[in-house]
Amino acid sequence: MSALHENHCEACRPDAPRLSQGEIEALLPEVPHWRVVERDGIPMVERSYAFRNFKDALAFTNRVGEIAEAEGHHPDLLTAWGKVTVTWWSHKIKGLHRNDFIMAAKCDRIYEDDFGG
Amino acid sequence: MSALHENHCEACRPDAPRLSQGEIEALLPEVPHWRVVERDGIPMVERSYAFRNFKDALAFTNRVGEIAEAEGHHPDLLTAWGKVTVTWWSHKIKGLHRNDFIMAAKCDRIYEDDFGG
Repeated sequence: MSALHENHCEACRPDAPRLSQGEIEALLPEVPHWRVVERDGIPMVERSYAFRNFKDALAFTNRVGEIAEAEGHHPDLLTAWGKVTVTWWSHKIKGLHRNDFIMAAKCDRIYEDDFGG
Repeated sequence: MSALHENHCEACRPDAPRLSQGEIEALLPEVPHWRVVERDGIPMVERSYAFRNFKDALAFTNRVGEIAEAEGHHPDLLTAWGKVTVTWWSHKIKGLHRNDFIMAAKCDRIYEDDFGG
Protein backbone atom coordinates (compact mmCIF):
# COMPACT_ATOMS: atom_id res chain seq x y z
CA MET A 1 0.00 0.00 0.00
CA SER A 2 1.37 3.42 -0.86
CA ALA A 3 2.05 5.93 1.90
CA LEU A 4 -0.83 8.31 2.59
CA HIS A 5 1.07 11.38 1.41
CA GLU A 6 1.63 9.77 -2.00
CA ASN A 7 -2.11 9.49 -2.66
CA HIS A 8 -4.23 12.07 -4.44
CA CYS A 9 -7.65 13.40 -3.63
CA GLU A 10 -10.54 11.76 -5.36
CA ALA A 11 -13.51 13.90 -6.39
CA CYS A 12 -15.73 14.31 -3.36
CA ARG A 13 -19.44 14.27 -4.13
CA PRO A 14 -22.06 15.55 -1.68
CA ASP A 15 -23.31 11.97 -1.29
CA ALA A 16 -19.86 10.50 -0.57
CA PRO A 17 -19.84 8.71 2.77
CA ARG A 18 -18.11 10.40 5.67
CA LEU A 19 -15.38 8.42 7.37
CA SER A 20 -16.67 6.31 10.23
CA GLN A 21 -15.19 6.65 13.69
CA GLY A 22 -13.34 3.38 13.10
CA GLU A 23 -11.91 4.60 9.81
CA ILE A 24 -10.79 7.86 11.45
CA GLU A 25 -9.08 5.94 14.25
CA ALA A 26 -7.33 3.76 11.69
CA LEU A 27 -6.01 6.78 9.76
CA LEU A 28 -4.92 9.00 12.68
CA PRO A 29 -1.77 6.95 13.51
CA GLU A 30 -0.51 7.77 10.03
CA VAL A 31 -0.64 11.49 10.91
CA PRO A 32 0.07 11.33 14.65
CA HIS A 33 0.48 15.11 15.15
CA TRP A 34 -3.05 15.78 13.93
CA ARG A 35 -6.11 15.81 16.14
CA VAL A 36 -9.79 15.68 15.42
CA VAL A 37 -11.68 18.84 16.42
CA GLU A 38 -15.36 19.56 16.03
CA ARG A 39 -16.68 23.01 15.05
CA ASP A 40 -20.31 23.80 14.34
CA GLY A 41 -20.97 20.08 14.55
CA ILE A 42 -18.44 19.32 11.79
CA PRO A 43 -15.47 17.02 12.54
CA MET A 44 -12.17 18.35 11.17
CA VAL A 45 -8.49 17.43 11.47
CA GLU A 46 -6.10 20.10 12.68
CA ARG A 47 -2.41 20.59 13.36
CA SER A 48 -0.26 23.58 14.33
CA TYR A 49 3.29 23.85 12.96
CA ALA A 50 6.06 25.93 14.55
CA PHE A 51 8.45 28.19 12.61
CA ARG A 52 11.34 30.50 13.42
CA ASN A 53 9.58 33.63 12.27
CA PHE A 54 6.66 35.04 10.29
CA LYS A 55 8.38 34.73 6.93
CA ASP A 56 8.86 30.96 7.24
CA ALA A 57 5.30 30.54 8.49
CA LEU A 58 3.97 32.39 5.45
CA ALA A 59 6.23 30.38 3.13
CA PHE A 60 4.72 27.18 4.54
CA THR A 61 1.21 28.58 4.08
CA ASN A 62 2.06 29.16 0.43
CA ARG A 63 3.40 25.65 -0.03
CA VAL A 64 0.20 24.23 1.44
CA GLY A 65 -1.75 26.60 -0.81
CA GLU A 66 0.05 25.14 -3.82
CA ILE A 67 -0.91 21.56 -3.06
CA ALA A 68 -4.44 22.69 -2.19
CA GLU A 69 -4.79 24.25 -5.64
CA ALA A 70 -3.19 21.21 -7.30
CA GLU A 71 -5.58 18.80 -5.58
CA GLY A 72 -8.64 21.06 -5.73
CA HIS A 73 -9.11 20.70 -1.97
CA HIS A 74 -8.61 23.70 0.32
CA PRO A 75 -7.97 24.01 4.05
CA ASP A 76 -8.27 26.80 6.53
CA LEU A 77 -4.79 28.21 7.10
CA LEU A 78 -4.17 30.38 10.14
CA THR A 79 -0.83 32.12 9.70
CA ALA A 80 0.71 33.90 12.69
CA TRP A 81 4.21 34.88 13.78
CA GLY A 82 6.10 31.57 13.98
CA LYS A 83 3.02 29.39 13.68
CA VAL A 84 0.62 27.99 11.09
CA THR A 85 -2.51 26.06 12.03
CA VAL A 86 -3.95 23.94 9.21
CA THR A 87 -7.51 22.60 9.34
CA TRP A 88 -8.89 20.12 6.83
CA TRP A 89 -12.43 18.90 6.33
CA SER A 90 -14.63 18.15 3.36
CA HIS A 91 -17.12 20.95 2.88
CA LYS A 92 -19.40 18.97 0.56
CA ILE A 93 -20.04 16.23 3.11
CA LYS A 94 -19.67 18.46 6.20
CA GLY A 95 -17.24 15.99 7.66
CA LEU A 96 -14.07 14.02 7.17
CA HIS A 97 -13.14 12.16 3.99
CA ARG A 98 -10.00 10.15 3.30
CA ASN A 99 -8.92 13.17 1.18
CA ASP A 100 -8.47 15.17 4.39
CA PHE A 101 -6.00 12.65 5.78
CA ILE A 102 -4.14 12.51 2.46
CA MET A 103 -3.75 16.31 2.57
CA ALA A 104 -2.72 16.22 6.24
CA ALA A 105 0.02 13.73 5.36
CA LYS A 106 1.16 15.92 2.45
CA CYS A 107 1.44 18.92 4.81
CA ASP A 108 3.57 16.88 7.23
CA ARG A 109 5.85 15.87 4.38
CA ILE A 110 6.35 19.51 3.28
CA TYR A 111 7.15 20.49 6.87
CA GLU A 112 9.63 17.65 7.34
CA ASP A 113 11.33 18.02 3.98
CA ASP A 114 11.52 21.80 3.64
CA PHE A 115 11.14 23.32 7.09
CA GLY A 116 13.16 20.93 9.23
CA GLY A 117 10.06 19.73 11.06
CA MET B 1 -3.61 65.20 9.33
CA SER B 2 -2.47 62.37 7.07
CA ALA B 3 -4.81 59.47 6.39
CA LEU B 4 -4.41 56.52 8.74
CA HIS B 5 -3.13 54.18 6.02
CA GLU B 6 -0.28 56.59 5.21
CA ASN B 7 1.13 56.32 8.74
CA HIS B 8 3.78 53.88 9.87
CA CYS B 9 4.02 51.81 13.00
CA GLU B 10 6.04 53.23 15.83
CA ALA B 11 8.10 50.89 17.99
CA CYS B 12 5.75 49.44 20.58
CA ARG B 13 7.32 48.98 24.01
CA PRO B 14 5.81 46.74 26.67
CA ASP B 15 5.06 49.87 28.74
CA ALA B 16 3.33 51.72 25.89
CA PRO B 17 -0.20 52.70 26.88
CA ARG B 18 -3.06 50.75 25.39
CA LEU B 19 -5.65 52.77 23.53
CA SER B 20 -8.48 53.93 25.77
CA GLN B 21 -12.08 53.10 24.92
CA GLY B 22 -12.51 56.69 23.75
CA GLU B 23 -9.46 56.49 21.51
CA ILE B 24 -10.70 53.21 20.02
CA GLU B 25 -14.11 54.74 19.33
CA ALA B 26 -12.45 57.72 17.66
CA LEU B 27 -10.37 55.48 15.37
CA LEU B 28 -13.01 52.90 14.38
CA PRO B 29 -14.88 55.25 11.97
CA GLU B 30 -11.67 55.46 9.94
CA VAL B 31 -11.84 51.67 9.40
CA PRO B 32 -15.61 51.11 9.44
CA HIS B 33 -15.49 47.48 8.30
CA TRP B 34 -13.42 46.46 11.31
CA ARG B 35 -14.83 45.40 14.64
CA VAL B 36 -13.33 45.01 18.06
CA VAL B 37 -13.29 41.42 19.35
CA GLU B 38 -11.95 40.15 22.64
CA ARG B 39 -10.11 36.83 22.96
CA ASP B 40 -8.45 35.58 26.13
CA GLY B 41 -9.17 38.99 27.62
CA ILE B 42 -7.25 40.77 24.86
CA PRO B 43 -9.04 43.34 22.67
CA MET B 44 -8.25 42.98 18.96
CA VAL B 45 -9.53 44.45 15.70
CA GLU B 46 -10.75 42.04 13.04
CA ARG B 47 -12.15 42.09 9.52
CA SER B 48 -13.03 39.40 6.98
CA TYR B 49 -12.47 40.08 3.27
CA ALA B 50 -14.23 38.22 0.44
CA PHE B 51 -12.52 36.92 -2.71
CA ARG B 52 -13.56 35.04 -5.84
CA ASN B 53 -11.47 31.98 -5.04
CA PHE B 54 -8.66 30.54 -2.94
CA LYS B 55 -5.88 31.90 -5.14
CA ASP B 56 -6.97 35.52 -4.71
CA ALA B 57 -7.43 35.01 -0.98
CA LEU B 58 -3.90 33.68 -0.67
CA ALA B 59 -2.56 36.53 -2.82
CA PHE B 60 -4.12 39.00 -0.40
CA THR B 61 -2.64 37.13 2.56
CA ASN B 62 0.76 37.53 0.95
CA ARG B 63 0.26 41.24 0.36
CA VAL B 64 -0.67 41.70 4.01
CA GLY B 65 2.35 39.58 4.92
CA GLU B 66 4.58 41.97 2.98
CA ILE B 67 3.41 45.07 4.83
CA ALA B 68 3.59 43.16 8.13
CA GLU B 69 7.26 42.37 7.48
CA ALA B 70 7.93 45.94 6.31
CA GLU B 71 6.39 47.45 9.45
CA GLY B 72 7.62 44.76 11.86
CA HIS B 73 4.08 44.18 13.08
CA HIS B 74 2.30 40.89 12.36
CA PRO B 75 -1.37 39.89 12.36
CA ASP B 76 -3.18 36.59 12.50
CA LEU B 77 -4.24 35.74 8.94
CA LEU B 78 -6.91 33.10 8.45
CA THR B 79 -6.93 32.13 4.77
CA ALA B 80 -9.81 30.04 3.45
CA TRP B 81 -11.47 29.48 0.07
CA GLY B 82 -12.69 32.95 -0.95
CA LYS B 83 -12.09 34.54 2.43
CA VAL B 84 -9.33 36.03 4.57
CA THR B 85 -9.87 37.12 8.16
CA VAL B 86 -7.23 39.52 9.49
CA THR B 87 -6.78 40.14 13.21
CA TRP B 88 -4.50 42.83 14.62
CA TRP B 89 -3.45 43.47 18.18
CA SER B 90 -0.24 44.46 19.92
CA HIS B 91 1.28 41.44 21.59
CA LYS B 92 3.66 43.43 23.78
CA ILE B 93 0.89 45.38 25.48
CA LYS B 94 -1.75 42.63 25.21
CA GLY B 95 -4.16 45.09 23.68
CA LEU B 96 -4.77 47.68 21.00
CA HIS B 97 -2.26 50.32 19.94
CA ARG B 98 -2.65 52.96 17.26
CA ASN B 99 -0.34 50.74 15.16
CA ASP B 100 -3.15 48.18 14.86
CA PHE B 101 -5.49 50.73 13.32
CA ILE B 102 -2.77 51.94 10.96
CA MET B 103 -2.28 48.35 9.77
CA ALA B 104 -6.04 47.80 9.48
CA ALA B 105 -6.27 50.87 7.24
CA LYS B 106 -3.35 49.63 5.13
CA CYS B 107 -5.13 46.27 4.64
CA ASP B 108 -8.28 48.07 3.49
CA ARG B 109 -6.27 50.08 1.02
CA ILE B 110 -4.67 46.93 -0.49
CA TYR B 111 -8.11 45.33 -0.80
CA GLU B 112 -9.63 48.39 -2.45
CA ASP B 113 -6.73 49.09 -4.78
CA ASP B 114 -5.77 45.60 -5.88
CA PHE B 115 -8.72 43.31 -5.21
CA GLY B 116 -11.65 45.48 -6.22
CA GLY B 117 -12.93 45.66 -2.65
